[in-house]
Amino acid sequence: MKAVGVIVEYNPFHNGHAFHVQAARETSNADIVIAVMSGNFLQRGEPALVSKWYRTKMALSGGVDLVFELPYQFATQNAEFFADGAISILDAVHCESFCFGSESGDISSFLKTIDFLEEHQEIFDENVRRHIKSGVSYPKALSLSFQDFTDTEGLLNLTKPNNILGFQYIKSIKKVNSKIKPLTIARKNANYHDEHFASETIASATSIRKALFSTDDRTFTIDQYVPEPTTELLKEYYNHYRGFHQWENYWSYLQFRLIQCTPEELRNIYEVEEGIENRLKAAALTAGSFQEFMEKIKTKRYTWTRLQRICVHILTNAVKEEMSKPEGANYLRLLGMTQKGKTYLNKVKSELKLPLVSKLSSYKQKEIMLDIKAAQIYSFGIPLDLRNEFIQQEYKQIPIIVK
Amino acid sequence: MKAVGVIVEYNPFHNGHAFHVQAARETSNADIVIAVMSGNFLQRGEPALVSKWYRTKMALSGGVDLVFELPYQFATQNAEFFADGAISILDAVHCESFCFGSESGDISSFLKTIDFLEEHQEIFDENVRRHIKSGVSYPKALSLSFQDFTDTEGLLNLTKPNNILGFQYIKSIKKVNSKIKPLTIARKNANYHDEHFASETIASATSIRKALFSTDDRTFTIDQYVPEPTTELLKEYYNHYRGFHQWENYWSYLQFRLIQCTPEELRNIYEVEEGIENRLKAAALTAGSFQEFMEKIKTKRYTWTRLQRICVHILTNAVKEEMSKPEGANYLRLLGMTQKGKTYLNKVKSELKLPLVSKLSSYKQKEIMLDIKAAQIYSFGIPLDLRNEFIQQEYKQIPIIVK
Repeated sequence: MKAVGVIVEYNPFHNGHAFHVQAARETSNADIVIAVMSGNFLQRGEPALVSKWYRTKMALSGGVDLVFELPYQFATQNAEFFADGAISILDAVHCESFCFGSESGDISSFLKTIDFLEEHQEIFDENVRRHIKSGVSYPKALSLSFQDFTDTEGLLNLTKPNNILGFQYIKSIKKVNSKIKPLTIARKNANYHDEHFASETIASATSIRKALFSTDDRTFTIDQYVPEPTTELLKEYYNHYRGFHQWENYWSYLQFRLIQCTPEELRNIYEVEEGIENRLKAAALTAGSFQEFMEKIKTKRYTWTRLQRICVHILTNAVKEEMSKPEGANYLRLLGMTQKGKTYLNKVKSELKLPLVSKLSSYKQKEIMLDIKAAQIYSFGIPLDLRNEFIQQEYKQIPIIVK
Repeated sequence: MKAVGVIVEYNPFHNGHAFHVQAARETSNADIVIAVMSGNFLQRGEPALVSKWYRTKMALSGGVDLVFELPYQFATQNAEFFADGAISILDAVHCESFCFGSESGDISSFLKTIDFLEEHQEIFDENVRRHIKSGVSYPKALSLSFQDFTDTEGLLNLTKPNNILGFQYIKSIKKVNSKIKPLTIARKNANYHDEHFASETIASATSIRKALFSTDDRTFTIDQYVPEPTTELLKEYYNHYRGFHQWENYWSYLQFRLIQCTPEELRNIYEVEEGIENRLKAAALTAGSFQEFMEKIKTKRYTWTRLQRICVHILTNAVKEEMSKPEGANYLRLLGMTQKGKTYLNKVKSELKLPLVSKLSSYKQKEIMLDIKAAQIYSFGIPLDLRNEFIQQEYKQIPIIVK
C-alpha cells in the first residue's frame, strides 16, 4: 500500500480541498491519503472555526484516510517550523510522496529556487539582514531579498504565501534527508486570501469564513463551495455550540491575562520580545475588542499573523522553553481514519518512526501537554454551560472512524 | 478637631452601619468620622457587590467624613493582617480614638483577654499547634485553644468573628504603640453572618446580599434595612452595569487561569501551599461553576474564607513576594470626603504619617499597583461593553466630595 501526504488546516474543508485530495491521490498513484492537520489553533494565529474533531470528520468525508494532528508546537509557528513539524510526521508514517498546491503546479521551479538560494545563501542572508535593519518584518525582508534575484529565469515567486509554504516543505524534506517525493498541483482559481468568491464551485477558506460570519441568519449560502458533509457538520456545530469560534470570543480572556500578568511573565511567553510586552499590556487597558487591540499593537516590524500567534501563545501560556527550536514531532496523534486508513496503519505499525497516540491516557510524554492545554483553552470560545463537556472531550475522545 | 476611626467593608452600607457611625461619633465625642474601607475585594475573599466608589458614596451619605481605602495587601488577609493595615491608616491620620462593634459593647473584656493571653502565651501557642496537628484550620485551632480557658471569668468569646476582629484591632494598636483609644459599642440585634432579617430595621449585610441576589425582579425589598441613598445607589449601579458583582461572574476567568497556568506559577501565588495547586488545577477541569469548584476543593484544613481569598489572589495574580508580611500601610488612598472631612484633612495634612494619594498619576510607589490591578480585574465582573470605561475609571476618578 502506498500513501501520499497532504498538509492542511481545513478551516473549513471546501471543494478546493476535495480537489486537492483527489489530485494528490491521482498524481501520486497512492492507495491512501494521509493528512497532517493543525489542531484547534492555526498557523495564522487564529482559533479554528470548529474543533479539530469536526474538521477531522470533514476530512474523512472528503477523501482523506488518516488524519494526524500537527502539534501546537508546530501548528502555531512560522512557515519554516510549521513545515518541519508536518514533514516529520509524514516521514514517520512512511508516506512515499506528498502533494501541495501551488500557483504554477510545477515542482521544478521549487527545486530550482532552493538550489539557487543555497548557492547564493550568503548574499541572500546579507540582504535579509539589511532589509530587517530598515525596520520591516522578517517575512517582508525575505520577500524583498528574494525580489533582488527576480531577473533569474524560472525562479518561484516567493512573495506568495502558498509558494513560501511549498518552498519550506521541500527545504524540510532536504533537511531531514527524507525519502518523501514532493509533488505539486496547480491550485484551482482561488487565491489564498481571496475574500470574494472566485469561481462557480471553488472559493478560498478565507472567503467562506467571511460569509459564515457576515450572514446574520446563517442561511449557509456557502453550499456551492463546500461538500455537503461540511455544510452539515458546520450546521450541527453551530447549533450545538451556539456559534463558531473566532478571536473575539477569546478577547476577554486575553485582556484579563494581559492585565493580571507581570511584564516578566509576559516576556517569558514564546515570541514576546524586544519590549513588546509593555505595548501589549498598555493596549489591553484601552482596547474594547480584539480587532481594536490588534490595531493598537500593529507595527511595521511585526506582521498581523505574527502578532496573532503571540496572542495565541499568551492565551495558552506557551512559554519560550517549551516552544523553542523544535526539530520535529515526537509523537503521532491520530485524530481519525477510514477503514482503508486503518488497514494501512496496521501494516506500517511496527515501522512507525514515532510513537502512535490514539488514547491520551496511555501517553505520558510532556510535549503533548501543550496540545491538550490548547484544546482546553479553545473551549473558552463556547458558552459556559457547554464548556466543561468540551474541556473533558480532549481526554475522552478516541480517534474518529468512518465507513 | 477630633476624629474617630471605623474599620469597614460596607457591602452594602445598611442601618446597622449608620447606627455604628453615629454611636462612634457620640461615644468618642469626635467631630468627624474616618472610615478605612476595603476596596473591591473583601476580607472574606469575595468581590464587593458594587465598586469601592459607590460604597464610598454610601458611606459619605451615612455620616462618614473621610474614606480611605484599606489596601488590597491588607483587605484580603486574615484578621491579624487586616487589623494591622487598618490601624496603621487610622494612626497615620491621627484619629484620637476608634470604635468597633462587638457582642458585649464592653471594652474591658477585650483588654482583659489580651492581657490574659499574653500571660499565658506559651500554653496558648502550644494548644494552637496541637489543634492544628489534629488537622483543623488555623482559625478553628485558635478558637479551640481559647475554649481551653473558658473557665476564666470576664474573658471574651473569641469564637465569634466580630470579637476576633476587635481583639486583633486592639492587638495591632499595642503592637505599633499607637495612642489611639479603642472604643466598642454593642452591635444591634443582627448576628454577623445572619442570613435572615432579625429586626424591624437592622439586618446583616449577608442577609441583605442574599435578598439582593435571590429576588428575580429586583424589587429591592431591602428598603427597610438600608438608608435611602444605599437603595438609590444600588439601583443606579444595577441598572447601569446590569447586575451586581459576585464570584460566579469571575468563574470563567478563574477557571481559564487555573487551566492555562503551570503548577509552578500557581505555587507562586500568595497562600497557595502544601500542594493545594494540584487540587485547584484538577478541580478547575471539571467544575461548572464557582460554587461547584469550592465544594470540590474544600478540606477540613482550609476554611471556605481562606480558599476564597486564595481564589482572589489567583485572579489578581498576587504573588507571595508582594503580599508577604506587610507591617502597615505605606500610603493613604483617599476615596472620598465631606466638606468637614476636607477641613480636617487640611488641618492635619502636614502631620500625616504617610503620603496622601488623591490622584494616582502623581503617585509612583509600587505597593499601590496591586490596588490598581485589583480594581482592573474587578472590572471583569461587568459586561464587556461597559468594561473598558470601568477599567479606566481607576486612573481617572478623583476622590468623591459631598455636601
